[in-house]
Amino acid sequence: MATMMRALCKVRPEPGFVEQEVRVPSIGPTDVLIRIEKAGICGTDYHIYAWDHWAQERVHPPRIIGHEFMGRVVEVGDAVRSVRVGDRVSAEGHIADLTCLLCRTGQAHICERLKIIGVDRDGSFAEYIAMPEYNVWKLDPAISDEFGAIFDPLGNAVHTVMAAGVSTRSVVITGVGSVGLMAIPVARAAGAALVFAIDINPAKLDLARRLGADRAFLATQPGLVDEIRALTNGDGVDVLLEMSGSGAAIDSGLQMVRNGGTAALLGIPSDNVNLNLAERIIFKGLTVLGVNGRLMFETWYQTQALVKSGRIDLRSIITHRLRLDEFEEAFELMRTGAAAKIVLDVTAS
Amino acid sequence: MATMMRALCKVRPEPGFVEQEVRVPSIGPTDVLIRIEKAGICGTDYHIYAWDHWAQERVHPPRIIGHEFMGRVVEVGDAVRSVRVGDRVSAEGHIADLTCLLCRTGQAHICERLKIIGVDRDGSFAEYIAMPEYNVWKLDPAISDEFGAIFDPLGNAVHTVMAAGVSTRSVVITGVGSVGLMAIPVARAAGAALVFAIDINPAKLDLARRLGADRAFLATQPGLVDEIRALTNGDGVDVLLEMSGSGAAIDSGLQMVRNGGTAALLGIPSDNVNLNLAERIIFKGLTVLGVNGRLMFETWYQTQALVKSGRIDLRSIITHRLRLDEFEEAFELMRTGAAAKIVLDVTAS
Amino acid sequence: MATMMRALCKVRPEPGFVEQEVRVPSIGPTDVLIRIEKAGICGTDYHIYAWDHWAQERVHPPRIIGHEFMGRVVEVGDAVRSVRVGDRVSAEGHIADLTCLLCRTGQAHICERLKIIGVDRDGSFAEYIAMPEYNVWKLDPAISDEFGAIFDPLGNAVHTVMAAGVSTRSVVITGVGSVGLMAIPVARAAGAALVFAIDINPAKLDLARRLGADRAFLATQPGLVDEIRALTNGDGVDVLLEMSGSGAAIDSGLQMVRNGGTAALLGIPSDNVNLNLAERIIFKGLTVLGVNGRLMFETWYQTQALVKSGRIDLRSIITHRLRLDEFEEAFELMRTGAAAKIVLDVTAS
Amino acid sequence: MATMMRALCKVRPEPGFVEQEVRVPSIGPTDVLIRIEKAGICGTDYHIYAWDHWAQERVHPPRIIGHEFMGRVVEVGDAVRSVRVGDRVSAEGHIADLTCLLCRTGQAHICERLKIIGVDRDGSFAEYIAMPEYNVWKLDPAISDEFGAIFDPLGNAVHTVMAAGVSTRSVVITGVGSVGLMAIPVARAAGAALVFAIDINPAKLDLARRLGADRAFLATQPGLVDEIRALTNGDGVDVLLEMSGSGAAIDSGLQMVRNGGTAALLGIPSDNVNLNLAERIIFKGLTVLGVNGRLMFETWYQTQALVKSGRIDLRSIITHRLRLDEFEEAFELMRTGAAAKIVLDVTAS
Repeated sequence: MATMMRALCKVRPEPGFVEQEVRVPSIGPTDVLIRIEKAGICGTDYHIYAWDHWAQERVHPPRIIGHEFMGRVVEVGDAVRSVRVGDRVSAEGHIADLTCLLCRTGQAHICERLKIIGVDRDGSFAEYIAMPEYNVWKLDPAISDEFGAIFDPLGNAVHTVMAAGVSTRSVVITGVGSVGLMAIPVARAAGAALVFAIDINPAKLDLARRLGADRAFLATQPGLVDEIRALTNGDGVDVLLEMSGSGAAIDSGLQMVRNGGTAALLGIPSDNVNLNLAERIIFKGLTVLGVNGRLMFETWYQTQALVKSGRIDLRSIITHRLRLDEFEEAFELMRTGAAAKIVLDVTAS
Repeated sequence: MATMMRALCKVRPEPGFVEQEVRVPSIGPTDVLIRIEKAGICGTDYHIYAWDHWAQERVHPPRIIGHEFMGRVVEVGDAVRSVRVGDRVSAEGHIADLTCLLCRTGQAHICERLKIIGVDRDGSFAEYIAMPEYNVWKLDPAISDEFGAIFDPLGNAVHTVMAAGVSTRSVVITGVGSVGLMAIPVARAAGAALVFAIDINPAKLDLARRLGADRAFLATQPGLVDEIRALTNGDGVDVLLEMSGSGAAIDSGLQMVRNGGTAALLGIPSDNVNLNLAERIIFKGLTVLGVNGRLMFETWYQTQALVKSGRIDLRSIITHRLRLDEFEEAFELMRTGAAAKIVLDVTAS
Repeated sequence: MATMMRALCKVRPEPGFVEQEVRVPSIGPTDVLIRIEKAGICGTDYHIYAWDHWAQERVHPPRIIGHEFMGRVVEVGDAVRSVRVGDRVSAEGHIADLTCLLCRTGQAHICERLKIIGVDRDGSFAEYIAMPEYNVWKLDPAISDEFGAIFDPLGNAVHTVMAAGVSTRSVVITGVGSVGLMAIPVARAAGAALVFAIDINPAKLDLARRLGADRAFLATQPGLVDEIRALTNGDGVDVLLEMSGSGAAIDSGLQMVRNGGTAALLGIPSDNVNLNLAERIIFKGLTVLGVNGRLMFETWYQTQALVKSGRIDLRSIITHRLRLDEFEEAFELMRTGAAAKIVLDVTAS
Repeated sequence: MATMMRALCKVRPEPGFVEQEVRVPSIGPTDVLIRIEKAGICGTDYHIYAWDHWAQERVHPPRIIGHEFMGRVVEVGDAVRSVRVGDRVSAEGHIADLTCLLCRTGQAHICERLKIIGVDRDGSFAEYIAMPEYNVWKLDPAISDEFGAIFDPLGNAVHTVMAAGVSTRSVVITGVGSVGLMAIPVARAAGAALVFAIDINPAKLDLARRLGADRAFLATQPGLVDEIRALTNGDGVDVLLEMSGSGAAIDSGLQMVRNGGTAALLGIPSDNVNLNLAERIIFKGLTVLGVNGRLMFETWYQTQALVKSGRIDLRSIITHRLRLDEFEEAFELMRTGAAAKIVLDVTAS
């Protein structure tokens, strides 16, 4: 077994990452060591790369970044029972304490003591990662390496879609970054009868249409709330999937939902949001759902079912494939918004 | 306005129908008179035609038969507010009292005092029918006459699929008569990741495959329960949609469902069913749902959403189109099982 | 039948009401005329009396005020089937159009074209009121006149409690005005294992304790969020019932709810509320429910079940009983907060 | 640490138990060793004692019997993190594999590979028991030893009540053995507005009344279905909790439920049940729930909430307290039906 490995690290509290040699992590009795093959890049990684206000508050260098990946198990702890060396796996990157009320009642994804790989502990932009057995997800042979590497963000989309419940319903997605884009085929495969996408970036709207959005709109279009209502018999859509984190999108998105409808909020506003709760939520009898992470592991099974059955095809989501040492190019693509999803090949050099 | 009309009647307690001239029905202040254009034939109509045991108990001649239809409103009662002369409509054929606990809490479809058109009061194999305003469903212009005429059985399929909840799930449909066949594209459109069809009729299985079943099986195939489990990673399917009414199908269908799964029962067994409740339901922690009719009118909105969006295409379901006076041929097709859905053109002659 | 009646009217756009003689309302074919016996006074009535900003925007004089009442049916329209002269009744004061998507799918309480008696059309501080048959609720003989007169606000409490789901759960109620106070015995009867009440008025907190709150707290108490969490094993309560409409209460109430918990919002903020959606709702995976009115008529059946079974006793809620002509005294009691619920005897003089 | 301990064993395939000295069990890295203080006797234990057909099929001697208990942790495995020596605990006696679809999606209670202590592996009628850390439940200091010892059967009652949902509803409990009896105060505390108990044993009906049943009926009373409907305004009850396992009780219980109601089945029929599915379930639109074990660990939290809050008082459920060596007397009490719940003091001698 190698003792040193290559990894992308945030080494100091400043913008950028450094590719360097670090020690291969060691594992405890209930852990698994995984040799990473492919890793996805998430907007969160870009925030850490750019070292924005959130990242400065949350991330404590030195830290290996990255949380979307797949690879092969190369070592298992003594008490590990369900995972074997050689297993082809992805993993849930939110590590819960498994002992609290929430973890003991099927809500480990909102455990108050969650540690996130690539943020609170070392992550997946590296040749190896140590993960608790509990978090490991064995990949079905019918699922490709690339799709396996992005089960994490795809799972965000699936979690949000399934929390809202879209079967036979009309849906607006506000914000079609990579998770919002994935939510389009997911919502269609999960039964949505009508899917509208809204964003401020025309290029994303084109991609939204290609991925199956029935209509796609610029968020800045005048009268958009009225147009969405007109397209839904004057009632408004049944479901809002909010994936932008923009206060303005939340406010207008809530206006687009019909009385009695559902709004699932996944996007994270960076500031407080000023809302007319009376008109937007209370009088309308709305159900508003905060969505975080992925249900362990109901979301993973749902994601697997959708991908394995061929009901969703993720190929057009993955717009770029790069090597680990091409990370500067990757983050430049993230910065310009030119990429939907970038997958790094960690084994290539 | 005409005072007499043609209608298919059960005139005496014996097999067969008679086409005859009868009076056009009169309407009360909250009723609507509809000129029927197209009418679907249901298995129930065949039971009444053939005058089986159930029909002898339930139907009291003389009675006009039929309950699936679309047409145009030609007259409205004084207190009618939401329907106008000229409206193109279908209608919910289950007429509830609207005053009981069930009707007052959104469960009118299981009102204890339901009257069914074509069974308990005069039906739709006629040039005109009187319906309460409450039961009338205005057809969206995007929906064809033929599809509008079969919203009733399609609604049975939608009600069953939506009651069970199929989004991202694996589904077995036992019994693919016309409603079971419709349930295949409905389940797929509503988000099912995997749909298996089972029947005793190979011709229906061919149709099931064409309508989108991932796999279709003869009910008599040895080891079928094991095969279904093998196809679902050894767990069993998430959902059973029981549409045969066969005790044997119910028993084996329940065995095919995974622990914690859902079984929605729409098919009506003609006799008692002998079940190992401990093994089939209790230890498995199953949810078993009795399904009857259509939710008024949530099912109708869901059905409209699926058809209007193009998510389901019913053309291959409608296998035969005949005139009202060709009813003998129609019921012969019903008898032999050669037809999926037959639509009668009531205006043609 | 009398042709004139006494009524409390807002006659001009200014504070106060005038008791005057007006014509007894006439009824249409689907309406019912009710002789009012007892009427409850709601905070909304006080807003109209005081003629605050909301009232000036919403209410168009001349208007008879009041929406909580019981009485006896004295006349029914020609098409009325389920109500008879002599029936002892209360009524749902939100009059829906009964023809829209919401009304046709069991959500008439959030119909976009709701008219509210005593606000948008004439109300119940009068000797007679005309109501649609659909809105009339026949009172069970086991329920007293006084309790029957306040089924409307009690129904608000029941609707909120049942929407959130409190069975075996811990509950915080923020704001114990008359509906918040009623929510205490309702939550306990509906199964809450722990009920905390919070208000800015110490007198209300005393009443809250007498009505069954396990603990009652001043909203201004330092460290209250921490104390509530400490009382719930560090997790926070399962359920927030927000009945104050205060932005500060909403913000701190959301902090008191555990991750994965439920917040039902009934209180109406008069201004926008500035919220940290990320921390209060999204990361916590909260379910936030807007609650309005009462489910027609599931809430009424639930309310009846609770009152009739004796599981809740409303006697200590009704703090004052006055005649219609003592309305000035009543609204002075409302102004000072000295009253929980005041019931007017409309037949006395 | 002791190496030998006293235990009640089924030593041979024949009726009766033998109290004997056996080795204290050893533990693995994720296990906990508990010194048992109090243990409850369940009807299942009596079946094994009497060596009925079910027991002969399921239990393979030699086996230590018993599955309801509380005690103190005396040793923990190397990988145990959340339990410490000295902790006062009860435990979930159903040991799931924790790796299958069901265990990974919050349904470990219906894992297909469940092992039950006292049935499939050694149980709690002994001085020590080894349990996986995952199954251990730390007892709140506010909960007495005796109540802690019967969290398992109480949890069956809570699971069934909460699965059905009783808040504001009317409930029939068929079969008031010890779990059925516990279900009475549980249903009331969980919000049931009306609770009816039915049994064939008049002594149990007396106890049912003392525990809070609004009415209690002999199952053999003529016209009982009609009487239950008459007591519920002609509609039938909202909820059936079936705890007898009797086919006749299931059939009549289903008749007592209103259309659209819920039936939760916990009692285990020893034979097939012959049911008119059309009339009992399908036309009625019933929801039938198979209930097994306890949700891990939502049911345990709910049970704790109910007991700790004082909403239910179990003292009158525990009718007998005996020493381990008085087991013959205990099982004689079980045989005659004279006992509700018997708790053995394992430390006494």
